[in-house]
Amino acid sequence: MSHVENMDKTAVSSRKLSLDKYKSTVGEEHVEHIRSLAEKLSGCSVVHVNSTSFGGGVAEILHRLVPLMQDVGLDTQWKVIKGTTEFFNATKTIHNALQGMKKPLTEELKNTYLQQNAANASQMSLDCDHVVIHDQQPLALINFYRKRYGKWIWRCHIDLSQPNQEFLRFSAPFIRLYDASIFTMKQYVSSSLKLKEVAIIPPSIDPLSDKNKSLPDTVILSVLSKYDVNPEKPILTQVARFDPWKDPLGVIDVYKLVKKKIPDVQLLFIGSMASDDPEGWVYFEKTARYSGADYDIHLLTDLVGVHDIEVNAFQRASNVVLQKSLREGFGLTISEALWKGVPVVGANVGGIPLQVIHNATGFLVNNVEEAAEKTIYLLKHSEIAKIMGEKGREHVRKNFLITRHLEDYLKLFIQLS
Amino acid sequence: MSHVENMDKTAVSSRKLSLDKYKSTVGEEHVEHIRSLAEKLSGCSVVHVNSTSFGGGVAEILHRLVPLMQDVGLDTQWKVIKGTTEFFNATKTIHNALQGMKKPLTEELKNTYLQQNAANASQMSLDCDHVVIHDQQPLALINFYRKRYGKWIWRCHIDLSQPNQEFLRFSAPFIRLYDASIFTMKQYVSSSLKLKEVAIIPPSIDPLSDKNKSLPDTVILSVLSKYDVNPEKPILTQVARFDPWKDPLGVIDVYKLVKKKIPDVQLLFIGSMASDDPEGWVYFEKTARYSGADYDIHLLTDLVGVHDIEVNAFQRASNVVLQKSLREGFGLTISEALWKGVPVVGANVGGIPLQVIHNATGFLVNNVEEAAEKTIYLLKHSEIAKIMGEKGREHVRKNFLITRHLEDYLKLFIQLS
Repeated sequence: MSHVENMDKTAVSSRKLSLDKYKSTVGEEHVEHIRSLAEKLSGCSVVHVNSTSFGGGVAEILHRLVPLMQDVGLDTQWKVIKGTTEFFNATKTIHNALQGMKKPLTEELKNTYLQQNAANASQMSLDCDHVVIHDQQPLALINFYRKRYGKWIWRCHIDLSQPNQEFLRFSAPFIRLYDASIFTMKQYVSSSLKLKEVAIIPPSIDPLSDKNKSLPDTVILSVLSKYDVNPEKPILTQVARFDPWKDPLGVIDVYKLVKKKIPDVQLLFIGSMASDDPEGWVYFEKTARYSGADYDIHLLTDLVGVHDIEVNAFQRASNVVLQKSLREGFGLTISEALWKGVPVVGANVGGIPLQVIHNATGFLVNNVEEAAEKTIYLLKHSEIAKIMGEKGREHVRKNFLITRHLEDYLKLFIQLS
Repeated sequence: MSHVENMDKTAVSSRKLSLDKYKSTVGEEHVEHIRSLAEKLSGCSVVHVNSTSFGGGVAEILHRLVPLMQDVGLDTQWKVIKGTTEFFNATKTIHNALQGMKKPLTEELKNTYLQQNAANASQMSLDCDHVVIHDQQPLALINFYRKRYGKWIWRCHIDLSQPNQEFLRFSAPFIRLYDASIFTMKQYVSSSLKLKEVAIIPPSIDPLSDKNKSLPDTVILSVLSKYDVNPEKPILTQVARFDPWKDPLGVIDVYKLVKKKIPDVQLLFIGSMASDDPEGWVYFEKTARYSGADYDIHLLTDLVGVHDIEVNAFQRASNVVLQKSLREGFGLTISEALWKGVPVVGANVGGIPLQVIHNATGFLVNNVEEAAEKTIYLLKHSEIAKIMGEKGREHVRKNFLITRHLEDYLKLFIQLS
């Protein structure tokens, strides 16, 4: 089969984006700075490789980052590896184990993983100046790709600080083959890996995407009306998968405490079910059962038509956003809320404290009671909530927008060149 | 494009089945009788056309009926029409309206429907002796198919007795083009259609399919154990979509009344969510909320791995099966339960009374209280329940097995030849 055909099978196409459109949001100077960095890479080719073109934060970012890299003059492609269900079950196990879960590393799992990385390597064209491999699914491509000539970068989106050691030992030889690796936070780097080139680059949101762009009030009100959410009453929101780590039952406990003081409060749970993970269904059911007959608790999923614009509208209509996670890689939903001027009450875990600055952009809390207390405080002090929201927006503007993300990548590419 | 390619795009392949395997279930004589009918059709070709190869009762039956027709010597194919989302929305509207729902018949809907039936007609090869068109989606193919030469039969699976007249007037000219039509029950024929050739053929279950074949106790117990259902305690089951017409909240009310007398009773709701109908999600949520913290109510869906074998196991483990529908086309889940020797407490609507013979194979009930009363009676009189179940099995053996269904089709083909 010809080369071109192979490329087509794994290539993801994104629509065009123009960096210039971000000037009014991040300033002309910042955009010019990015363009000047990109000039140093003029003519360079880049390929991003991950495991899915849809669903999850990585795909969401690549849909924006790839066209922006193209817009600043880098010949940028995005490719997706293929695999059987067995393969993706294996990579899910690896994912969980690398974050610390106890799992047996079987010969079968290793074989499936390596065999399909080898198969993908033989079918993909990755002859670029910078090859960015996202997460553990395509990590081993580097071991099988024949005519490697550019710089290979492993972009790790997960927390490797307390890994299942057996799985880390299995993955380490591949990680060490890379010219550099990127982690979201310093704390997420595994010390036992002893990596040379490590860049710390947090993820980002796109202020111009459907999820985050500004919306007319009429749109917001019509979304609320469609889902029977009352815009006149306080709205408390958590955006997260239905998953034990997001503690949906804890969120309901917070809501119930808040309701004692503020009886007309509404709770919105917004989560995507676009996944074939049965645990999502189990947790959706648990959450619905725990909500019982209280229809001031709204369960809002893509299954009933809640997509990017709707999520955006609900976030903008919220008085307080909660992120009651027990564990959180980064939690971009927090930046999404802060960007919309909504203060966040978040658990003091993972990447949340990077975004929720206690007493400034929201509150960091350690349990249900604290979360309820701070939520009540914000609902009762709307002026303070507003000021915190504005600070949150500025904090995100400086630190967690896609332009900063793009800049960090360009700097790393220049450094490696 | 060549003919063969066109055929491949719409053809559904099923695995092989042998009619001889049914001898031990329905008797050698019945199988021989079917073979002798089939001999009269020797060399005949048949094509079934419907709108989906997966999901719903029609596809479930065709997956068994088509290979059995092949096995008795008819050159039988199954083809599926293609369509846009818009088309399938239109046919859903037609479906609901033909069953009586008030809907506007727009020009846009008519155009979408006719245009895509025309497109399908031009792309399909339907040059067979007997063309069986299932339901309203491909109904208008007959109007557009050019070189019609065989007998065309419309197999209507729905209740046309109280249709939205506007939609019936739109559909009637197509229906009248057919050489014959098949309805599930005499009562479902629309009198205003004044049809000539009408055959009454109820649907059927396949006793050898994964959903209905006998299962070793070890399999049944392991399925129960996997889903935390206690085999030592009474089990009450409804198999149905999460849908207002199946009255899931009414089923919970029945269960709650039963639980007052029999505190350790368990309720299993088994439903497939393999549909992109948002109403399914809304009703699943409502059912979960109404179930609240009572985990003796089990919500069991394909999303958590409940497929044919699991449904089979749960039905076999049930003491009583409920079918509390407010409306029911036929309700094959009742025959499935009866075939497994489980008595059924069913609403006195639609096709249910054909299967639930009051006081013999179960009880026909008119409200929650009656349903609870009869359920309690069956749970307290296990010997009577057993006898009713046995009668149910014999009733299904005589009337609702796929062999009888196959026989009816062969008779109709002979009659039309």
